[in-house]
Amino acid sequence: MTFKIFKFKGCVFLKEIYLDNSATTRVCASAVEKAVKIMTEIYGNPSSLHSKGLEAEHEMQKARKIIASELGAEDGEIYFTSGGTEGNNLAIFGTAHALKRRGNRIVTTAIEHSSVMETMHQLEKEGFEVIYLKPDRSGKIRPEDIKSSVTSDTVLVSIMAVNNEIGSIQPIEYVRRAISASASPALFHVDAVQAFMKMPIIPRRLGIDLMTVSGHKIHAPKGIGAIYVRKGVRILPMQFGGLQEGKLRPGTEPCPSICAMGAAVEELHGKQSRKEYVSELNRYCRKKLAQTDGIVINSDEECLPYIINFSVVGIRSETVLHFLAEKGIYVSSGSACAKGRKSHVISVLGLPEDIADSAIRVSFSEENTLEDIDILVKSLEEALLTLARRKRM
Amino acid sequence: MTFKIFKFKGCVFLKEIYLDNSATTRVCASAVEKAVKIMTEIYGNPSSLHSKGLEAEHEMQKARKIIASELGAEDGEIYFTSGGTEGNNLAIFGTAHALKRRGNRIVTTAIEHSSVMETMHQLEKEGFEVIYLKPDRSGKIRPEDIKSSVTSDTVLVSIMAVNNEIGSIQPIEYVRRAISASASPALFHVDAVQAFMKMPIIPRRLGIDLMTVSGHKIHAPKGIGAIYVRKGVRILPMQFGGLQEGKLRPGTEPCPSICAMGAAVEELHGKQSRKEYVSELNRYCRKKLAQTDGIVINSDEECLPYIINFSVVGIRSETVLHFLAEKGIYVSSGSACAKGRKSHVISVLGLPEDIADSAIRVSFSEENTLEDIDILVKSLEEALLTLARRKRM
Repeated sequence: MTFKIFKFKGCVFLKEIYLDNSATTRVCASAVEKAVKIMTEIYGNPSSLHSKGLEAEHEMQKARKIIASELGAEDGEIYFTSGGTEGNNLAIFGTAHALKRRGNRIVTTAIEHSSVMETMHQLEKEGFEVIYLKPDRSGKIRPEDIKSSVTSDTVLVSIMAVNNEIGSIQPIEYVRRAISASASPALFHVDAVQAFMKMPIIPRRLGIDLMTVSGHKIHAPKGIGAIYVRKGVRILPMQFGGLQEGKLRPGTEPCPSICAMGAAVEELHGKQSRKEYVSELNRYCRKKLAQTDGIVINSDEECLPYIINFSVVGIRSETVLHFLAEKGIYVSSGSACAKGRKSHVISVLGLPEDIADSAIRVSFSEENTLEDIDILVKSLEEALLTLARRKRM
Repeated sequence: MTFKIFKFKGCVFLKEIYLDNSATTRVCASAVEKAVKIMTEIYGNPSSLHSKGLEAEHEMQKARKIIASELGAEDGEIYFTSGGTEGNNLAIFGTAHALKRRGNRIVTTAIEHSSVMETMHQLEKEGFEVIYLKPDRSGKIRPEDIKSSVTSDTVLVSIMAVNNEIGSIQPIEYVRRAISASASPALFHVDAVQAFMKMPIIPRRLGIDLMTVSGHKIHAPKGIGAIYVRKGVRILPMQFGGLQEGKLRPGTEPCPSICAMGAAVEELHGKQSRKEYVSELNRYCRKKLAQTDGIVINSDEECLPYIINFSVVGIRSETVLHFLAEKGIYVSSGSACAKGRKSHVISVLGLPEDIADSAIRVSFSEENTLEDIDILVKSLEEALLTLARRKRM
């Protein structure tokens, strides 16, 4: 028996082991509670002038304050979006279109999330020159490449804080200096979807102008996110309508999700020891994986502890993924957004083909346990035995 | 005592009378229940390849099927958006940009929602010629104006089904014929946010190519909506990223809200008698308002029963709104999205200034009662006495 079971009233249940927290997370109790309260009691439209609207607006501003405070930002620097994809689109298009008369060049990386990559491809069609910096084998962009690529006609530098597939932390602390040295008008955008609340990232300290965060990676519901826009920075909206979110993002605000995100941030913030706990999970998992013949770890020790990418050599990612899923263990092959397409991130790392084709991502939350890891590794050993044997037959 | 009270354990409570259902609604029990289930149990990312993702996708497709069926559409013709504003922006920009080489002219009305109006203003800046048809005094566009305005170089006709401030039903059944007669490449878009589930509106029957609906006007949460895109119609996306929603609207799908919208549509659909019930509320309210000296009804009898616009002559809208709100009665002055700005809809109707400045919108849901209307009218009489007297002093 390699999977977690529990007994209740004489029946045996399979307990799920969810290790795909970088794809999405379970919504935490306080966020659910808040969403329900807003849906059923404080259900006014924040734009309504009566008290039913004002109380909804008040709740929404409380959530904004919580998120602003988490980012060391002012309330007015936080704009709610429908999630990370919209946030990245808005920050990137909004900057490129606002500054297009001042320059034509954009610097990004070859390992961004598809919501950045596809937006960049669109801007190329509009005539922008986009530089895609390649990472080293560990998935990290080299600081010297950032420095040399930012020229005086650069209008935007967009680099993710943490790569979603391998967990590599990018040297974003070098970007502001590179922009200053180039004397370019460039704004600095960070896709912090995988980093938010998992590592310290204070936009003001790092000279970040725009930053994207998302709710559903930190136990808030899907469909809510925010962008930080530094006070004084002007970007163009993508949607037009009412006066909401300073006209940068019109439309009736999704209060239940906004307030749930506030509650999730508050709850996570309160769990001070959770980052160390996840680091402990990571160390334990790395140790166990390293001891297993046939497994190669692709994420180095400097990666964010929440993500470990490894390969079950010789067995295709999806085969392992389904083998584990049948046991109630959920992991990912590459990014969920790619849905089975070959990962552009893994491709660019220059890994041998058999390693690349068998890459698996495990991503933790503070809800995981050491026992989860034991069961994962046992199941991987089983996979190596069964699936590799089947292959030989 | 003119407001609804109830007693519990020796205390007296004020019961709210919510008559602002065209601004937003309370989320219904089945929608809340569904959202909670998705947030806490079926919380996978629909794009994930494992069973946790597949079950989330399955739930999402069930919701899509419910909404499609309500619109007499195929599942593949429904694309989820973050709400009405995004839906209108996507349908309008998506069409204009897709067809810009085939024509330059867009026909719409002067009484559209701000998410249509502002998008049109943006397209004017891009070089499109936009025709804004003016309504008659009852808030209705004339069929002959539609016919004469659609020319061979028209690429889009966008007309709302029901006006959000006055409740007037637009003659959208004339549009398809006008487009055919003009031999133009125009697509036909309907903003059906106020009409969805409140009157019969089957896109295929009316020759509609694109239609916007929203969740939070029909007891689903804020932050979810959908557009119908007729099979075979190609519009351009506004956001770029993953493969979700056929790439027309990428980003992790907001499953809790999507499934809650499905549940709300299902629940409302089941209440067959609700439209007649709201018509009864409307007739009763019209009768009582007509009997009150100092009140003029602006919505004629052909308007959607869910909305009545009237003026408490001589007292500014916001004064009445706040007077009622203090009694726990919530109504609207113009559209919530305008937040106190003078309504462009009321302005264009050509009403005398004192009528226009005192316009109030009451909007029903099936949760309202005849007693709510009695209390509203009593409170309006009180307002007329107290506020008009104050004014004279």
